[in-house]
Amino acid sequence: MRLSQYFLPTLKETPQEAQVVSHRLMLRAGMISQSTSGIYSWLPLGSIVLRKIEAIVRNELNQSGAHEVVLPTIQSADLWKESGRYDAYGAEMLRFQDRHDRDMLYTPTAEELMTDIARRYLRSYRDLPQSLYQIQWKFRDEIRPRFGVMRGREFYMKDAYSFDVNEKGARESYFRMMRAYIKTFDRLGLTAVPVRADPGPIGGDLSHEFHIIASTGESLLYYDRKLEDIMAESGHTEVPVDAIMDLYAMEEEMHDPENCPVPASDLRQARGIEVGHIFYFGTKYSEALGANITDFDGKILPIHMGSYGIGISRLVAAIIEASHDEAGIIWPESVAPFQIALINLKVGDSACDETCQNIYDRLIESGVTVLYDDRQTGAGDKFATMDLIGLPWQVRVGPKGLKAGTVEIKCRRSGVVQEISLGSALTQLTATLAA
Amino acid sequence: MRLSQYFLPTLKETPQEAQVVSHRLMLRAGMISQSTSGIYSWLPLGSIVLRKIEAIVRNELNQSGAHEVVLPTIQSADLWKESGRYDAYGAEMLRFQDRHDRDMLYTPTAEELMTDIARRYLRSYRDLPQSLYQIQWKFRDEIRPRFGVMRGREFYMKDAYSFDVNEKGARESYFRMMRAYIKTFDRLGLTAVPVRADPGPIGGDLSHEFHIIASTGESLLYYDRKLEDIMAESGHTEVPVDAIMDLYAMEEEMHDPENCPVPASDLRQARGIEVGHIFYFGTKYSEALGANITDFDGKILPIHMGSYGIGISRLVAAIIEASHDEAGIIWPESVAPFQIALINLKVGDSACDETCQNIYDRLIESGVTVLYDDRQTGAGDKFATMDLIGLPWQVRVGPKGLKAGTVEIKCRRSGVVQEISLGSALTQLTATLAA
Repeated sequence: MRLSQYFLPTLKETPQEAQVVSHRLMLRAGMISQSTSGIYSWLPLGSIVLRKIEAIVRNELNQSGAHEVVLPTIQSADLWKESGRYDAYGAEMLRFQDRHDRDMLYTPTAEELMTDIARRYLRSYRDLPQSLYQIQWKFRDEIRPRFGVMRGREFYMKDAYSFDVNEKGARESYFRMMRAYIKTFDRLGLTAVPVRADPGPIGGDLSHEFHIIASTGESLLYYDRKLEDIMAESGHTEVPVDAIMDLYAMEEEMHDPENCPVPASDLRQARGIEVGHIFYFGTKYSEALGANITDFDGKILPIHMGSYGIGISRLVAAIIEASHDEAGIIWPESVAPFQIALINLKVGDSACDETCQNIYDRLIESGVTVLYDDRQTGAGDKFATMDLIGLPWQVRVGPKGLKAGTVEIKCRRSGVVQEISLGSALTQLTATLAA
Repeated sequence: MRLSQYFLPTLKETPQEAQVVSHRLMLRAGMISQSTSGIYSWLPLGSIVLRKIEAIVRNELNQSGAHEVVLPTIQSADLWKESGRYDAYGAEMLRFQDRHDRDMLYTPTAEELMTDIARRYLRSYRDLPQSLYQIQWKFRDEIRPRFGVMRGREFYMKDAYSFDVNEKGARESYFRMMRAYIKTFDRLGLTAVPVRADPGPIGGDLSHEFHIIASTGESLLYYDRKLEDIMAESGHTEVPVDAIMDLYAMEEEMHDPENCPVPASDLRQARGIEVGHIFYFGTKYSEALGANITDFDGKILPIHMGSYGIGISRLVAAIIEASHDEAGIIWPESVAPFQIALINLKVGDSACDETCQNIYDRLIESGVTVLYDDRQTGAGDKFATMDLIGLPWQVRVGPKGLKAGTVEIKCRRSGVVQEISLGSALTQLTATLAA
């Protein structure tokens, strides 16, 4: 992509309204634009990252054996009246009437819709286990939206639902999903810590939140420091679910300082951004809506269900909270909007123009994504823009280097700049990055 | 994918409520499920097709030089009050108040949002031309939703917007988009006919609808029969926009029988399903919202805009209308939910099971997508299911054939069944289909 033809409205000033670094950087990098309170438009750079995260989440869900569905954003209130949540759910649910004065709502979460699908189509124990997921926009009318897309009103979410014959099967589905989550976050370049969350009136031990550790997190976590080491390894290896379950790891409301079994020296207290939540809720919705199956011995039983969320739009911000410096964003390779920033330091100089065009063509042929800064502007401006938007590698092409047959390569994460021969630069970059 | 683990609730009976063949087949093939009037859940088989169409549309838009954005489904009414459309748009627009009693609406179309982005970020002729698109759910509260997803209330749409300095530039953007549309429909296995549509009060000749010819279409079209030949070729060759523009091709409201230059013998009259619409509307919204740029000589001028829609969810139905037979759907290869149906005719027979498993593994290794019918059910049921859901190729493995070292391959479109040696079957299929 040529920057001269791209749509990248970066800001030099720091936006006043943004309280957290991810919000500031997303505005400054031209990734998002507020449409109205808590509602954002995703501009091209932000849209690419959103779609890349979506693709990784989808791929891991598919590999876990779940099937994608697409549920509507607007639904009739009837199902929610049946489940009892139409009255119980607060003002965060957007309610309205359609032109025929029927009560409708904007889906804030899809337990009712999914349970309705289960009761229509799942009839027998032979139809189970089953897992369905969707990646869809949700709306919750937060009274005080804040932190940009971190706590917006309209947000993009993956929500999965598992259907099992009994609790034993449901536990297997739960841990299969836990493994898929750990792999997903690892592929996103994140270490997410699972902590036990309040399972609510249903009780039991099967409710975990996944948190990215960040000082701006809204949640307070208490956990055995061994958990971080386990999590850092888990994405690459067989996920040790038993070891994770054995360790103390609690969301604030679940933490009991009086009875905490971890000595103070081993207890880590940290703030976290919740990016995922997995939850086994048994037969709550299947009983309310009559989603039953016939067991192998002919008994009619309600389906055991779990639900599993990942905040896709929030993850964009969480990744930035976890990976940035003074100069801007530092994207993990897997979600970077482009892999390489190609910087022409003297547009109009025929050696620079030709070399850049040649590098650009060859990288694209190799399947590498490139943002080529071909604008008529100074080197300082170009370096600052590319540092701000955080592409993993910069290739800088200037007349002085070209006379010596070299270009500079900067690794955005380490900050290391290497002068390197033109030939090695291409070989090195394509070997590292080619798809 | 093993069918025993998949979620494919096919129906044997023909649903009473469905008036058109695509609606009937989408329900019978377990692709969609009505959630409430005009609002559908997309089940796994339908979701794959929807995502495949989305990916092809996105890829062609990107190649045309447009940039993807993601705009919110919910917006403030303010922009629509500014443009004057808040009152002008009828009851199809879903309006409501948020918890702070602010007027909000569910985006039925995004001219206002896009023009707002243009006025915020496009300042100079140097920022143009520019094209932005999104693929997002829209809602129009149809008074009488019908024909399944063909005329639903919530629908999935690609809408693009072009921004140019003047009419000349806008015409170039318009024809660039026309070329992208023709290529897109060709990749989807469709011949779409562009006809002139009523440009409304703005006038001019730059408004075309793209139609799939089908007897169930809601529009009546009149065009020179030469257009069909040109369109059938256009996807594969340089698109002859001039030749297309020279031919008579009108949507009903634009057709004037008194002054039609085409002799009756060459005039084709046909019904069409509208799947795309491209439209140059000049400065209508940029003037209303003050989206101006500075021209090269310092003059402040309103931006010239066009908008370009493709109905993604409607296309799923339109493809079925254009490609089916008595037995079910016949998917074009590019959008088929799986490329191959692998049918085990005797589950439990060790030769059949092993051969099927072997074929399954090798096809998947080659990057081919396979739906493997491993259910304990009769051959007739299996053939009928696969004919219904319309995968392009069936591989049928039975004990009798295996004794002779053969399997059967059926081409869904031609209906031809070949008996072929096991080795050639794999070679032939992977050569044809490997990604």
